[in-house]
Amino acid sequence: MTDKTRYQLDESDMPTSWYNIIPDLPVAPSPPLHPKTGEPVGPADLAPLFATELLKQEMSGESFIEIPEEVQSVYRTYRPSPLIRAKALEKVLGLPAGVKIFYKYEGVSPAGSHKPNTAIPQAFYNKQEGIKRISTETGAGQWGSAMSIACALYGMECTVYMVGISYDQKPYRRLLMETYGAEVISSPSKRTEAGRHVLGLDPDSLGSLGIAISEAVEDAAGRDDTHYCLGSVLNHVCLHQTIIGEEAILQMELAQAEPDVVVACVGGGSNFAGIAFPYYRRNTQGKSKARLLAVEPKACPTLTAGEYRYDLGDEAGMTPQMLMYTLGHDFVPAGIHAGGLRYHGDSPLVSLLVKEGKAEAVAVHQKACFDAAVMFARSEGILPAPESSHAIRAAIDEALAAREAGQDRTILFNLSGHGHFDLTAYEAYLNGQLQDYDFAAGSMCEGE
Amino acid sequence: MTDKTRYQLDESDMPTSWYNIIPDLPVAPSPPLHPKTGEPVGPADLAPLFATELLKQEMSGESFIEIPEEVQSVYRTYRPSPLIRAKALEKVLGLPAGVKIFYKYEGVSPAGSHKPNTAIPQAFYNKQEGIKRISTETGAGQWGSAMSIACALYGMECTVYMVGISYDQKPYRRLLMETYGAEVISSPSKRTEAGRHVLGLDPDSLGSLGIAISEAVEDAAGRDDTHYCLGSVLNHVCLHQTIIGEEAILQMELAQAEPDVVVACVGGGSNFAGIAFPYYRRNTQGKSKARLLAVEPKACPTLTAGEYRYDLGDEAGMTPQMLMYTLGHDFVPAGIHAGGLRYHGDSPLVSLLVKEGKAEAVAVHQKACFDAAVMFARSEGILPAPESSHAIRAAIDEALAAREAGQDRTILFNLSGHGHFDLTAYEAYLNGQLQDYDFAAGSMCEGE
Repeated sequence: MTDKTRYQLDESDMPTSWYNIIPDLPVAPSPPLHPKTGEPVGPADLAPLFATELLKQEMSGESFIEIPEEVQSVYRTYRPSPLIRAKALEKVLGLPAGVKIFYKYEGVSPAGSHKPNTAIPQAFYNKQEGIKRISTETGAGQWGSAMSIACALYGMECTVYMVGISYDQKPYRRLLMETYGAEVISSPSKRTEAGRHVLGLDPDSLGSLGIAISEAVEDAAGRDDTHYCLGSVLNHVCLHQTIIGEEAILQMELAQAEPDVVVACVGGGSNFAGIAFPYYRRNTQGKSKARLLAVEPKACPTLTAGEYRYDLGDEAGMTPQMLMYTLGHDFVPAGIHAGGLRYHGDSPLVSLLVKEGKAEAVAVHQKACFDAAVMFARSEGILPAPESSHAIRAAIDEALAAREAGQDRTILFNLSGHGHFDLTAYEAYLNGQLQDYDFAAGSMCEGE
Repeated sequence: MTDKTRYQLDESDMPTSWYNIIPDLPVAPSPPLHPKTGEPVGPADLAPLFATELLKQEMSGESFIEIPEEVQSVYRTYRPSPLIRAKALEKVLGLPAGVKIFYKYEGVSPAGSHKPNTAIPQAFYNKQEGIKRISTETGAGQWGSAMSIACALYGMECTVYMVGISYDQKPYRRLLMETYGAEVISSPSKRTEAGRHVLGLDPDSLGSLGIAISEAVEDAAGRDDTHYCLGSVLNHVCLHQTIIGEEAILQMELAQAEPDVVVACVGGGSNFAGIAFPYYRRNTQGKSKARLLAVEPKACPTLTAGEYRYDLGDEAGMTPQMLMYTLGHDFVPAGIHAGGLRYHGDSPLVSLLVKEGKAEAVAVHQKACFDAAVMFARSEGILPAPESSHAIRAAIDEALAAREAGQDRTILFNLSGHGHFDLTAYEAYLNGQLQDYDFAAGSMCEGE
């Protein structure tokens, strides 16, 4: 065990392959099904929307997929990201020497989150296949920002359908995307049939992620020069995020420490997959016995209270059905501030790990998460995104439990992003205006 | 010359001393003078406001001052900061192989700028001397954020007098400080005599940095448990920022490259000092021939159009007179978006270097800076702070001039911060609403 604060890899030590968990799973993943026919969906069905290479990755049997040099070179502007020993937090918590907390920090990317890890290769593969324009959707704006940046870097056009209420309430996120050259459209819009249909029923519709997805997919389907990109849930998205865990393994080796538990928050599942899948491999290889802990909000507890079954990926039924934990595709989570965790389903790969007992899940309340986030900010300095605060809460709870039990424990969590765009959430917390919502108690409400 | 993108130091290679330029200057710096008597001001006069150790550093004759371990350990949560070869920008500019651009990126700090480099040691030395509370002022909020974070990390109280109009117009910056536990007060306030005086004359006063300084100083002078901290201009602030240049020297060695020109923006002068002073030493040692280029806004061209003379550091005459370039302490710069560069004077040490021909200065218009900033964001990915965009503009101009002249040139600039809190400025730029202001043409107006 070394006594450093920060374990920083040189760019020459950045992993050059992503890890594909599929061949190592205890059971084969079930295929997606057509939303209407219920028949398995193959690459040919999805080719109008996605790059061929991404569809290959979606069902690949290769354990490692090489990161193209053109992607590596862009990764290198912000990667390898740091792995930091949370010494100041440990001190504030009064932890004994045997209980240690490390975090991998993805907020150093230009978007301030882990999202560019997949936006960059998605843009690259599409460009390589002659696509000139990407259409996508965004809720609070994290994914739209990442995709806008990636498109700018490869000289592609980008159109982002942004949920109407966020478009109005989050002008800074919209401006960020526009500064990178993206076209940002308030959804529902008059540009698509899906949008016009919704506006016909309700001209004042505030929009939803489901509607925005429908618009972005319709846009891409209607133009040969355009493909669609998605920021979480899918297998190839989880694949790209494994750069996080691959780096973390090297950095924990530098620290001469092996995590007993690896923690990340879960919305669609990609940042959890990113740090946890490489440790799953390490577990199967007998090199580690790390528990893999997914943390979700009690307002949207997909993994802990959902059913494991086929369900649609979106409200409107535009996307295939996937075998996953779900609260039902018509479930509208309460308006918690961690907008990125408000998803009714979950990555099929992450769901399968939980189903098979290879990963654990826990649900936490948002007030307790903001308690943890503020404690973290005032000790470690970094202001976390509300989503990431769920991982911090669970990491602190793991540390305190180990202290109580008199056990040693090494905890590694993924700090997926900074909270510089989320200060209104902190304002609500500081003013005592945060509410907790409990799915189990039947408390739900229209969200942001 | 290596071909990497990112030159990352291990924390064990982080420099452990700051560089003090004073003993190496061609002429001794002139002492500050009392604002009213005009007599030299000594440590005893300033002791009620500043930590003894900081006053020692202000006039130290030592070339290197060791960074205390307690400061190093906090630096290590975000330092060493990366040095990045701007390969994508070089490509967009169509530069020949002999013209290279590197940048040192300080936006990775928890405040998103270089300011914590001095906020952290200032908080530390004050705490060490038994001070429990810091009072300071902030304009747009960069410095107030950094000081709030530093105080949180050392468990000190922090009160920030924030210029009234910014308090109202920049709620996110205020919320950031409050999340770190700082008390943020709209200035002018009723809490101080200075504030009450201003409010008596004009109950609707929007405030100014001068008034906020007066309030913060009065607050500190009136309480034994409180000291005052300043974020730029002073010698000890420049000293702390030299960690930037000391790291850059090591990183440029890794790159097997020596800069022909070192570029940074100048407001009070500390981020320029940070990267340029260590290269000044290298020049005096004959190890380098780097030109040191300070970039300022044409709306506030202190170094290029100011007079070199004694002047007050603030509008109200609360601070000592300093020998520096100045546009006059009653000069109100136009309301450009780079709020951190709107200062009538400049660091006496930076002024002396320019006066003695050891550093150059150039003034640029804000529209041209935003052109450069957007080009940079869309190629390198990082959205720059408006202040930092001045350095980017000058770096690009240096590169293009070298290309025109058919010369080789290696350019190193300091990217002092990210622009995630400055999106309204980008909005104005994208909407074509930016105005250029030219001091030389007599165009000035009340600023933000």
